[in-house]
Amino acid sequence: MESELKSLVQALRDFAQARAWEPYHSPKNLASALSVEAAELLEHFQWLTEAQSRSLDPEKRAEVGAEMADVFLYLLQLADKLDIDLVDAARRKMIVNARKYPAPLDPPA
Amino acid sequence: MESELKSLVQALRDFAQARAWEPYHSPKNLASALSVEAAELLEHFQWLTEAQSRSLDPEKRAEVGAEMADVFLYLLQLADKLDIDLVDAARRKMIVNARKYPAPLDPPA
Amino acid sequence: MESELKSLVQALRDFAQARAWEPYHSPKNLASALSVEAAELLEHFQWLTEAQSRSLDPEKRAEVGAEMADVFLYLLQLADKLDIDLVDAARRKMIVNARKYPAPLDPPA
Amino acid sequence: MESELKSLVQALRDFAQARAWEPYHSPKNLASALSVEAAELLEHFQWLTEAQSRSLDPEKRAEVGAEMADVFLYLLQLADKLDIDLVDAARRKMIVNARKYPAPLDPPA
Repeated sequence: MESELKSLVQALRDFAQARAWEPYHSPKNLASALSVEAAELLEHFQWLTEAQSRSLDPEKRAEVGAEMADVFLYLLQLADKLDIDLVDAARRKMIVNARKYPAPLDPPA
Repeated sequence: MESELKSLVQALRDFAQARAWEPYHSPKNLASALSVEAAELLEHFQWLTEAQSRSLDPEKRAEVGAEMADVFLYLLQLADKLDIDLVDAARRKMIVNARKYPAPLDPPA
Repeated sequence: MESELKSLVQALRDFAQARAWEPYHSPKNLASALSVEAAELLEHFQWLTEAQSRSLDPEKRAEVGAEMADVFLYLLQLADKLDIDLVDAARRKMIVNARKYPAPLDPPA
Repeated sequence: MESELKSLVQALRDFAQARAWEPYHSPKNLASALSVEAAELLEHFQWLTEAQSRSLDPEKRAEVGAEMADVFLYLLQLADKLDIDLVDAARRKMIVNARKYPAPLDPPA
């Protein structure tokens, strides 16, 4: 991971330590919290049509961005606990996905 | 965002385009898919104790890493669709959280 | 289904109709909403230990009950839309589960 | 609750006891499992349009019914652990919802 993600991870460690939250931050609990935040993100979209979801107004877009940040922050914390390099894991998963869903020979126009 | 995230985002765009998946990738659908992947991540932990979740064996840890990658890949795609800078959003959310949960004056020993 | 569930389903139909919510209540959207409510339920437990979750105080228990009601109400509405008998589906799933997870010959003492 | 739900709950108790699953079935874990099953239900809908979700073919509808059964079975088990009457909780929640979302005076035609 590059420096901006590393500095976020360090800030999250400091934040949790200053509040003595480490005992709560088992991977089991962080995975729960991540899933809860993902649902809060989904909640913003649940009654929108797909078309509406493609053209959010600025206020809604800001709210959605804050929920996405929550998901990201838990993802970074969980990765840190488990010593997983998120960017590396993502690259490897894309290779798996490319095999699982081969692109058609004639790409879409 | 730094170059490694930008290159992941570009790879995801190319991947979706080569498969003509763009019509499916409304923010509403991406938020659903992200939430489903977060639950698949949680599933690995649901019957573990917190202590067990802190000491995963290598095989389980690899499976968990692959699920985290799925969450991350959808998060990056959703951010790309909505033109949200995930790292910037995360930094701003940490400032909000610091106000919401002030650290105690006497930090834990 | 017996009469108490049938009367709940009818009340939910009347409720949605009086508010002209039918256009929003596609099965896709109801499944999203159900998933969001399930996460709100989970949120009550995310930082508790398992032991704490086994002895909720009355106030927390009431809050949890209200979240469970939300999940149940969306489940009933989705079943109604898809013309699925929830109790019958549950009975059939238990038979499937009994084959998938056979009970040990020597039952636990 | 009427007899059909009571008999389902009793069957679930017997099922868990015969497999010695009780130690795993803390409310915290059951809420996680319920949330995971709700996401598996959502997964069936994530790439469908709302219109497609309103006209599932029989095979898909059966799969969706089985996922709904999983959600229901965990909901019943969690309610049993917490000594919550699900039908009663649902009725009370509908009264709360009626206050929160008052019906318009002129109902939709």
